Amino acid sequence: MEYRIEKDTMGEVQVPAHVYWGAQTQRSIQNFPIAQDINKMPKEIIKAFAYLKKAAAITNHEVGILAKEKSDLIGQVCDEILTEQLDDQFPLVVWQTGSGTQSNMNCNEVIAYRGHVLQGGELADKSKFLHPNDDVNKSQSSNDTYPTAMHIAAYKILVDVTIPGIIKLRDTLKAKSEAFRSVVKIGRTHFMDATPLTLGQEFSGYASQLDHGLRAIYNTLAHLSELALGGTAVGTGINTPEGYSENVARHIAALTGLPFITAENKFEALAAHDAIVEAHGALKTVAVSLMKIGNDIRMLSSGPRSGIGEIHIPDNEPGSSIMPGKVNPTQCEAMTMVAAQVMGNDVAIGIGGSNGHFELNVFKPLMAYNFLHSARLIGDVCVSFNDNCAVGIEPLHENIKKHVNNSLMLVTALNTKIGYYKAAEIAQTAHKNGSTLKETAVALGYLTPDEFDAWVKPEEMVGDNK
Amino acid sequence: MEYRIEKDTMGEVQVPAHVYWGAQTQRSIQNFPIAQDINKMPKEIIKAFAYLKKAAAITNHEVGILAKEKSDLIGQVCDEILTEQLDDQFPLVVWQTGSGTQSNMNCNEVIAYRGHVLQGGELADKSKFLHPNDDVNKSQSSNDTYPTAMHIAAYKILVDVTIPGIIKLRDTLKAKSEAFRSVVKIGRTHFMDATPLTLGQEFSGYASQLDHGLRAIYNTLAHLSELALGGTAVGTGINTPEGYSENVARHIAALTGLPFITAENKFEALAAHDAIVEAHGALKTVAVSLMKIGNDIRMLSSGPRSGIGEIHIPDNEPGSSIMPGKVNPTQCEAMTMVAAQVMGNDVAIGIGGSNGHFELNVFKPLMAYNFLHSARLIGDVCVSFNDNCAVGIEPLHENIKKHVNNSLMLVTALNTKIGYYKAAEIAQTAHKNGSTLKETAVALGYLTPDEFDAWVKPEEMVGDNK
Amino acid sequence: MEYRIEKDTMGEVQVPAHVYWGAQTQRSIQNFPIAQDINKMPKEIIKAFAYLKKAAAITNHEVGILAKEKSDLIGQVCDEILTEQLDDQFPLVVWQTGSGTQSNMNCNEVIAYRGHVLQGGELADKSKFLHPNDDVNKSQSSNDTYPTAMHIAAYKILVDVTIPGIIKLRDTLKAKSEAFRSVVKIGRTHFMDATPLTLGQEFSGYASQLDHGLRAIYNTLAHLSELALGGTAVGTGINTPEGYSENVARHIAALTGLPFITAENKFEALAAHDAIVEAHGALKTVAVSLMKIGNDIRMLSSGPRSGIGEIHIPDNEPGSSIMPGKVNPTQCEAMTMVAAQVMGNDVAIGIGGSNGHFELNVFKPLMAYNFLHSARLIGDVCVSFNDNCAVGIEPLHENIKKHVNNSLMLVTALNTKIGYYKAAEIAQTAHKNGSTLKETAVALGYLTPDEFDAWVKPEEMVGDNK
Amino acid sequence: MEYRIEKDTMGEVQVPAHVYWGAQTQRSIQNFPIAQDINKMPKEIIKAFAYLKKAAAITNHEVGILAKEKSDLIGQVCDEILTEQLDDQFPLVVWQTGSGTQSNMNCNEVIAYRGHVLQGGELADKSKFLHPNDDVNKSQSSNDTYPTAMHIAAYKILVDVTIPGIIKLRDTLKAKSEAFRSVVKIGRTHFMDATPLTLGQEFSGYASQLDHGLRAIYNTLAHLSELALGGTAVGTGINTPEGYSENVARHIAALTGLPFITAENKFEALAAHDAIVEAHGALKTVAVSLMKIGNDIRMLSSGPRSGIGEIHIPDNEPGSSIMPGKVNPTQCEAMTMVAAQVMGNDVAIGIGGSNGHFELNVFKPLMAYNFLHSARLIGDVCVSFNDNCAVGIEPLHENIKKHVNNSLMLVTALNTKIGYYKAAEIAQTAHKNGSTLKETAVALGYLTPDEFDAWVKPEEMVGDNK
Repeated sequence: MEYRIEKDTMGEVQVPAHVYWGAQTQRSIQNFPIAQDINKMPKEIIKAFAYLKKAAAITNHEVGILAKEKSDLIGQVCDEILTEQLDDQFPLVVWQTGSGTQSNMNCNEVIAYRGHVLQGGELADKSKFLHPNDDVNKSQSSNDTYPTAMHIAAYKILVDVTIPGIIKLRDTLKAKSEAFRSVVKIGRTHFMDATPLTLGQEFSGYASQLDHGLRAIYNTLAHLSELALGGTAVGTGINTPEGYSENVARHIAALTGLPFITAENKFEALAAHDAIVEAHGALKTVAVSLMKIGNDIRMLSSGPRSGIGEIHIPDNEPGSSIMPGKVNPTQCEAMTMVAAQVMGNDVAIGIGGSNGHFELNVFKPLMAYNFLHSARLIGDVCVSFNDNCAVGIEPLHENIKKHVNNSLMLVTALNTKIGYYKAAEIAQTAHKNGSTLKETAVALGYLTPDEFDAWVKPEEMVGDNK
Repeated sequence: MEYRIEKDTMGEVQVPAHVYWGAQTQRSIQNFPIAQDINKMPKEIIKAFAYLKKAAAITNHEVGILAKEKSDLIGQVCDEILTEQLDDQFPLVVWQTGSGTQSNMNCNEVIAYRGHVLQGGELADKSKFLHPNDDVNKSQSSNDTYPTAMHIAAYKILVDVTIPGIIKLRDTLKAKSEAFRSVVKIGRTHFMDATPLTLGQEFSGYASQLDHGLRAIYNTLAHLSELALGGTAVGTGINTPEGYSENVARHIAALTGLPFITAENKFEALAAHDAIVEAHGALKTVAVSLMKIGNDIRMLSSGPRSGIGEIHIPDNEPGSSIMPGKVNPTQCEAMTMVAAQVMGNDVAIGIGGSNGHFELNVFKPLMAYNFLHSARLIGDVCVSFNDNCAVGIEPLHENIKKHVNNSLMLVTALNTKIGYYKAAEIAQTAHKNGSTLKETAVALGYLTPDEFDAWVKPEEMVGDNK
Repeated sequence: MEYRIEKDTMGEVQVPAHVYWGAQTQRSIQNFPIAQDINKMPKEIIKAFAYLKKAAAITNHEVGILAKEKSDLIGQVCDEILTEQLDDQFPLVVWQTGSGTQSNMNCNEVIAYRGHVLQGGELADKSKFLHPNDDVNKSQSSNDTYPTAMHIAAYKILVDVTIPGIIKLRDTLKAKSEAFRSVVKIGRTHFMDATPLTLGQEFSGYASQLDHGLRAIYNTLAHLSELALGGTAVGTGINTPEGYSENVARHIAALTGLPFITAENKFEALAAHDAIVEAHGALKTVAVSLMKIGNDIRMLSSGPRSGIGEIHIPDNEPGSSIMPGKVNPTQCEAMTMVAAQVMGNDVAIGIGGSNGHFELNVFKPLMAYNFLHSARLIGDVCVSFNDNCAVGIEPLHENIKKHVNNSLMLVTALNTKIGYYKAAEIAQTAHKNGSTLKETAVALGYLTPDEFDAWVKPEEMVGDNK
Repeated sequence: MEYRIEKDTMGEVQVPAHVYWGAQTQRSIQNFPIAQDINKMPKEIIKAFAYLKKAAAITNHEVGILAKEKSDLIGQVCDEILTEQLDDQFPLVVWQTGSGTQSNMNCNEVIAYRGHVLQGGELADKSKFLHPNDDVNKSQSSNDTYPTAMHIAAYKILVDVTIPGIIKLRDTLKAKSEAFRSVVKIGRTHFMDATPLTLGQEFSGYASQLDHGLRAIYNTLAHLSELALGGTAVGTGINTPEGYSENVARHIAALTGLPFITAENKFEALAAHDAIVEAHGALKTVAVSLMKIGNDIRMLSSGPRSGIGEIHIPDNEPGSSIMPGKVNPTQCEAMTMVAAQVMGNDVAIGIGGSNGHFELNVFKPLMAYNFLHSARLIGDVCVSFNDNCAVGIEPLHENIKKHVNNSLMLVTALNTKIGYYKAAEIAQTAHKNGSTLKETAVALGYLTPDEFDAWVKPEEMVGDNK
């Protein structure tokens, strides 16, 4: 490979001749050979940097400390990053400095050197039109840019991927709950037969879980909308012009179309990432819901002959390499695995968030990586589960009916007629004898056949069922 | 010991003669010999049951299905429970049935039998004035009472203990941040010297963390305010009178003074406890903040001679059984241990919450136990830390001044004058030579002594500092 | 209440007149009002201190730095502690200093002052026969005693409670696996019908999990057997006599009957508690096994009419306050709740273990509390589950037979005869038509009825089944 | 793109014309669009499949149920996989079916079709020389191959990456501990000055932690060495020839050079992955150690002027985009972030491991993914930290000496001479007056200057220091 020489404040570094990055990026590649093939800094972070570098350049130009030509050039490269034309210029991994400084410098270098080339220069030029620190990073520090990128990336992925995915699945579950509103079925508590409800009611619970999960996510957006930018090195805003924080937040809001504002307190915004912890707590809540829903649906569809078998889910693929004809609830499995991952990521984020010290939390890339992983997984799996499973769910009426009719817990309807103790005696006796409730109730002399028929009606035991 | 005989639907059970509980409580004692000395069902749950049993009795009476005398009697015993006169009547442990049925029955039995005695009966009477199931549990099931008790207990402890504790500490930290607003000190990022800020700014970050943490908790109260009561066995509300859910929630709200409402969806309310998961996510966020604050304060106060030593915290007790005169940041230690516990509890709650199946989650006591533990710990430790540490924090001006004056990172002020690279050269040279920035800057010929004095002023590097 | 005055190096403190503790214990009560009613320092830790204080006194006497009378007196009080005669003298909570210094001093004070009384003195005497620091704590520091107590308590509870509990359940499951060795039943993978196995084989898997879990625990005992005692303040062993570490470990081993040795490296032994982290990792592995076993058993016993219903578990108590005659798998619920708790405790322990700094980890009481909690819960719940559930498990042969005979996955036996694809076609067609495999196989012309009978024999599909 | 048609038991699927995979792989791509760009099935799993498919083919041939030509051909493709020539043929993601069936089929298809091509056929041929199910998957099921691949991959990465990485770092820390054996420094407990130790002793604690961590990992290898292969569909070994399990394990051992054996109990081996849970518990223990070590080293090297500053670590790269000349402990940051990730992964693995049901755990890919991630991260970060930080650590003697000489805790040496209380008075008075211990001790009249010099010698307070 051919190389060129780049310099930073520590001296010269050999860099591949054709790449746009510079000395500091190259040092990071060399100093952090950790899972380099699998843990690149998430692309959402790189794009978030593009938004903020462009916004900073505009703001710096507006207050007269950056020339228009430079500001425009920075914006032009940022647009190239946003349209994924420079994806191969960001080789760094998550496991670098905990402030993300090296990824900030990677962005600064690529923007400066690509800008220099766009402006007509050559990569080998000793002096370049844009300086990574003095121009691209002007009025900024890694310490405020990286957390700003975290919030931009986190907010954006929630709005672009996670929330729409959850809504899609929530809407399907709600539609199913309406479609199944008159399908009376056995309830199950403790895995044991209980009083009846409708299949629609059962699914309404799932939809309600996701409704509440969405609200939980929405509740955390306000904290995520606060941007650290303008805090620079330690939160004081050293080396920023008057009004910079508010202005740059306004520009980021305009560029992203999202309601970003400057953080109330920049010292918190650099030293702690409680907004990420809090918002991931909401993602974990949704993961907990998805685990519940996925488990229920695979158990309800279990069988085909020796399980619960009350619903049918789509047959998507052969399920076994040895058992011919087997079909499995694979979308439930992907979804519950995702749930477990998000619950694990939550712990990593909590540990990272709790270990900030003094003016800076240095678990930033870890927190960003896990947050974006979870947000992406939840969004994707909701769509996959929706399209490949939920939309195709249908009741298996024959099994449903059989289970209701056999149930001993219909006896509960008699509590208000004959009291809990006699009702219990009927159920226990029927269970022991393998007989029906009606036979047993009559045999025990507690009511007449007509009374039984009048009082024990599964379809009237399911409540309002609006 | 003397015994009397009590009966439930499974038959007779020997119960200590003098206790108010009955057969089902006694069976649970015998069937669950698990950590009985350390893991009693939390008293907050028992009290929450007292609120809801009283509210249910009132509601049942209002619609004419429970006699006034019975309703009043139930209410009277509930008041005894709330005033802690019957504390020794609730012997069951957390590790029982996952629906909490046995604690519900414990309440039903104690209320019925104590009521019978209050009404003039004797414990040994075969037939009693109040029936645990048919009267005290009327229009209820364990499946809706226990989650209702969870929400009542959770909401109440947050409002009574957790939030006031956090507010107290937040207020002190805010007051300190104002008191220290002009104390200029060295910033530290990556544990390394950085540009200056004021001690007040540093503390304002802590206060801001707790401010946001409080908002995170408040955000979760709406979901916690939803009560399952009225769902009965599986969410359909079987065996409840018309309008019961709304009315009983209204009565609970009146009795507790908290804004409880009936749950939007009772199927969710029995089968999932995402509200607990979500709200504990907020508690975990606060725990993460407390870990950060506790760590910072113990490091800032470290020394007395070989540490950072920029603040003094109260000397509360001798710190070592072997090292005479040693004093330690013990309140920070209690607080960070609490933080770790809450982070662990969060995982237990998530696992419990994710494993509900069909119409009922049966990890209810586990979830209640961990939630109440965390809420209590955070509230208590905030008060302890506040009273025994935070209020007494004072700056150690001499050390603070020494650190600022020695700092090489004051060089950052020169970026906008001579550029990042020359500024770096000054800092690196000063570091290598053990010289001051000013000497070095002048020696390198980058500026005059007067320029240095005019440009490098720590007190002007701390920003707005409002 | 009456008080007496006690002194420590910080001055005078009012102490209740009748208690054996002194100034430092009293300060801790006052300074740490955190969950005082529910989180006392575990009694196992107090007893472990009694062993080590006695051992230290003996060792000190042997090398001539403590008079025989004092050594004997210390031993005598320690024996009183071990026989639980002084339980009310240890009022401190977990949430105190992270070194456990205050509990060490609580022990030192109680031993000194109770010893003084035993020797004929009075609590109000200004000068006492035994000095908490100079006599009882001789050759010790909190920094080495507390971690020593952690290892003694942890090792002992594993050997006394956890391991016997697991063995008891493992033995029952193994016995069941033998009793059920010829009960051929349907297998289930992905919750879907699969090829058959025997119920005995299924239970052998559970027994094997616990077998491996026991080995995992045994593997961690070596690290737990290393005692910090002799490291004193920072690991160097300052103020200890020659040979002290080895001798005191030998005495502790003799007193406890457990193979304790002195730690290889005292600096690790004070500053890190990886042995606790590692051993709790084994407990978590067992918790994971118990969750699996508990879930399987409740699902296998589900029904009674609309579930899997292949085994019967004991009916221990009425299961519902509203549904008469309902019985639930409550022991499974207690066991799976315990599993969730242990998994949460594991995170608390990991966080505590990872946050030791310099020469001392100050999350010691947190780690001890969670470890002892988990060890106790696992031991207790294994016994409860064993006695109240596992021993009574019986197959429900009728359901088992029905499920096997209906199964489509018996077709797998044909793979080696007619190939996977034709076998799949048979299963899929039978599933679609609701017909039997045999009918379908013959109708499709792939084999004769005789061939089917000869090739598809569930009882020959279960392998060796030794 | 051009396509060809492939078939499985569900019908025809369009597959890109040039790829070696077939219908089932293609279905999985289409059905699981979940994080496809970032979460491919780990390559270690694919290679493990290559080992086991080759071993199965050999074993099948040996017992005469697979022709030599087919066995050889399978082995040849497996060798191509192992030498990474077919890396682009494994497009599936982690978030698929929880049994990993689709990745098993991906391997079966690629081996069959690539084998067909090697043997002279064309991908478009309707009938191919090797059949994915009947030849490549012979005597296997996904249910035993995937867990076998998990154990092979896990064991191999531990031996190839994780353990060597830890050993490398352990050796460096041990060497440093010897190099620094006579550097007497202040100890710190609770972040507060304590009695002295040597820098070598401090580092010996780190080395000892890793020593114990290595033993913890070694302890888990026995369980990992057990292979599920031979259990097939549900553990019974249906469709396997006599002696297959033992023979195929022997071949895998030979091919990998690792001591694999057949699992004691195949039912456990499919239905639970406690070996993965247990082994990851050991990885988590090491993560906890690394967090401790990383934190200590960054705090010891903190400064350069306002921190602890007792060691110097290598300056690897500029540390700030805004603060010129700043250098940060970035390797510590990468290491502690890795620690947090591994602690999070541990929770994901525990949840996955606990949720196996009946005869199969269907969280297999999740567990494999997290295990391999952690094992890789620990191995890589130990090497990176070693090479870029640990080897270059040097004491800063001047600061070390200053701290020792200032310390008040040297007073501890006087306990055995004048008692704890008088010693405390000296330390407290010196602290209050800002005076030295010696001055104060003499002024208080407790000893003479000569006694002080004779009794208080830091270099004699560090114990044996072997």
